Amino acid sequence: MAKRGMLIVLSGPSGVGKGTVRKAIFDQGGNDFQYSISMTTRKPREGEVDGVDYYFVSKEEFEHNIETGQMLEYAKYVDNYYGTPLKYVNETLDRGKDVFLEIEVNGALQVRKKSPDGVFVFLTPPDLMELKQRIINRGTEDMATINKRMAKAVEEIRMMQDYDFAVVNDKVENAVESIKTIIKSERFRVARVFPEYEEMLGDK
Amino acid sequence: MAKRGMLIVLSGPSGVGKGTVRKAIFDQGGNDFQYSISMTTRKPREGEVDGVDYYFVSKEEFEHNIETGQMLEYAKYVDNYYGTPLKYVNETLDRGKDVFLEIEVNGALQVRKKSPDGVFVFLTPPDLMELKQRIINRGTEDMATINKRMAKAVEEIRMMQDYDFAVVNDKVENAVESIKTIIKSERFRVARVFPEYEEMLGDK
Repeated sequence: MAKRGMLIVLSGPSGVGKGTVRKAIFDQGGNDFQYSISMTTRKPREGEVDGVDYYFVSKEEFEHNIETGQMLEYAKYVDNYYGTPLKYVNETLDRGKDVFLEIEVNGALQVRKKSPDGVFVFLTPPDLMELKQRIINRGTEDMATINKRMAKAVEEIRMMQDYDFAVVNDKVENAVESIKTIIKSERFRVARVFPEYEEMLGDK
Repeated sequence: MAKRGMLIVLSGPSGVGKGTVRKAIFDQGGNDFQYSISMTTRKPREGEVDGVDYYFVSKEEFEHNIETGQMLEYAKYVDNYYGTPLKYVNETLDRGKDVFLEIEVNGALQVRKKSPDGVFVFLTPPDLMELKQRIINRGTEDMATINKRMAKAVEEIRMMQDYDFAVVNDKVENAVESIKTIIKSERFRVARVFPEYEEMLGDK
């Protein structure tokens, strides 16, 4: 009977760069955890590939998945759905492999309720002004959207309190290093290793 | 007002090699945490230096420290006292510096009660037989003492459940690396970084 894998959740305000950090983690390779690809109804940005960055689906398809209980979490955000298909996550954890999710904050709270023993990491902007600049630089949103996002971001930073760890995204390589350190460390959690010792002691 | 430092506690069964691991951590250098030297009434082993490895004191002096409330924790173990003087730990934490303790398991439980937000790391032997061999190889104890210690060790491994992390001491350099990873990771704890964000958001 394999030990169940660990669920790692990376989240943070929109525009903080969690997609970039996640991509850097997996581009580096050598990880002993699996990436669970999110599903979204938003349009692909330049360079994004269906089935690699996201599963890009229609609104109808996404809503069908919700109704049939196939989503671990989902959220509607700036008029688009984002979510995590349940099946891949469960099957991978059952095989004893760790699973890495990169999801929106509303979704992360849903996962927290279902999997309180997961490792929840909040990616934070170095400061709020820089967050604003990043959203503007991305140049895909108009000012009304930007202001809406800023107000939401302040709210979301307060949400940090629902997470286990907060990592500042000052530089992508620092954030990657910090997140990998957290994952390594969490594997030493007594709750995760004690079952092996119980076996050694003949208690089980 | 400096942020209060983090208390790191390394403990584990007698003979598991926690003194060796602790020494390796500090011999390596480059750590941004301070070692709090323990006090004991046991005789120095070869190579141990008073005021470096331990404060070696008489039974009378140790008991005077207990009575006057100068110990953070202490335990009597195989007829000797081991403990941590309170003053240095408090002053260092107040300056915002992290403090590293390497102490016996009974003492660690006392510290856990007083400082539940500390980081508690349990050093475990790769297996019980190897633990026995290590104690024998040390050659400073007779068989009655060894058996007494073995029984105590089985009991103590069960104590792992009162700790946050368990690190196997298969090789000293692995244990050192693991413990340093845990310390780095724990600095990203939301409970430790959120106050800075509260300030940024103008809440405080």
